[in-house]
Amino acid sequence: MAKQERAVRTRGTLIRSAAEIFDTDGFVAASISAISSRAGVSGGALHFHFPSKSALAEAIEAEAERRLRLITCRTPAPSECPLRLLVDASHELFDQLNNDVVLRAGFSLGCEAAWRGEVDLHGQWKDWIGSTLASAADRGVLADGTAPEDAATVVAASTVGFEALGRKNPEWLSPQRLGRFWRFMLPRLEREGRAEAVFQKGTQ
Amino acid sequence: MAKQERAVRTRGTLIRSAAEIFDTDGFVAASISAISSRAGVSGGALHFHFPSKSALAEAIEAEAERRLRLITCRTPAPSECPLRLLVDASHELFDQLNNDVVLRAGFSLGCEAAWRGEVDLHGQWKDWIGSTLASAADRGVLADGTAPEDAATVVAASTVGFEALGRKNPEWLSPQRLGRFWRFMLPRLEREGRAEAVFQKGTQ
Repeated sequence: MAKQERAVRTRGTLIRSAAEIFDTDGFVAASISAISSRAGVSGGALHFHFPSKSALAEAIEAEAERRLRLITCRTPAPSECPLRLLVDASHELFDQLNNDVVLRAGFSLGCEAAWRGEVDLHGQWKDWIGSTLASAADRGVLADGTAPEDAATVVAASTVGFEALGRKNPEWLSPQRLGRFWRFMLPRLEREGRAEAVFQKGTQ
Repeated sequence: MAKQERAVRTRGTLIRSAAEIFDTDGFVAASISAISSRAGVSGGALHFHFPSKSALAEAIEAEAERRLRLITCRTPAPSECPLRLLVDASHELFDQLNNDVVLRAGFSLGCEAAWRGEVDLHGQWKDWIGSTLASAADRGVLADGTAPEDAATVVAASTVGFEALGRKNPEWLSPQRLGRFWRFMLPRLEREGRAEAVFQKGTQ
């Protein structure tokens, strides 16, 4: 393996190991030596890549931001219902919060009192929900009297609440729980008679 | 001041000071010496009341639980709309989360990765929402097809989301934001024609 390739791989391993330790212990309690030993690298190698624990947290947030963007990069195609896109993206986000420790640690860092990062994952998620619901409004998909910004507030706050509650009880991040949320919420957002069409395309 | 009275007062001051330090630094980063100096007592006096930082966290959670119960102790009177009670209690909770650092620190502890307490404030809040919405259903106040447990999930998750987002941006805990939430949500929960009556009684 070329030297550069090995360095990239070590860096990725360190980010993942730090995310695992942050995920169980939190940022402040996480120890640098636990991270290097989890990653199977020396303390010196860790410091070569990341001069401090804060540098590791910043790298986790940057990587989590990149992964969140893969979920929220899409705008609805002309033939696609924006609400359908929103439902799918939320399922994808929850699936990744369950399975991807880097994304999960990135979101958790955003709620840690002792950490002030530059990246605002919750804000990015909320903004994307807002713009997707705005395009639902433009296309006349929302029920009369539904302001897209109010709907975005409710959907964003609910999903952030699921994520916060899911940190101690993973059932909150299950597809069943999210499916029930949407079954409750969609008919209350959509112009009458459209909810069925969104569900028929396969939301569980 | 009698000796016992002074001890009670010192204990209260220590709980409040610990909550202030936990609120800004988080549980793990909070230092015992910062807490005793904030409280204006010696390290020895602190240890006399609380043998460890965990004991302080437990006392904060117990006190936060007592304060939450003062908000959620009520069941709707026969002449009272359960949804009205829910709206009022949520405004009271948010008002106290803004102004009462002990309650706020109690809720934050519930989301700290490194802290495993016995008290589940989020769960207690959700359970109370559930039972209040169940009595709304019993009284025929909920819209047809609205399962009280699904409505409780959405209201609980949203309010927990507001609380989580409010930790870094207090605007999420403003009465205006919560008022907009209810203005969006109530007409979607209630049997048609009732929402107006709930709002006319004075929700801002």
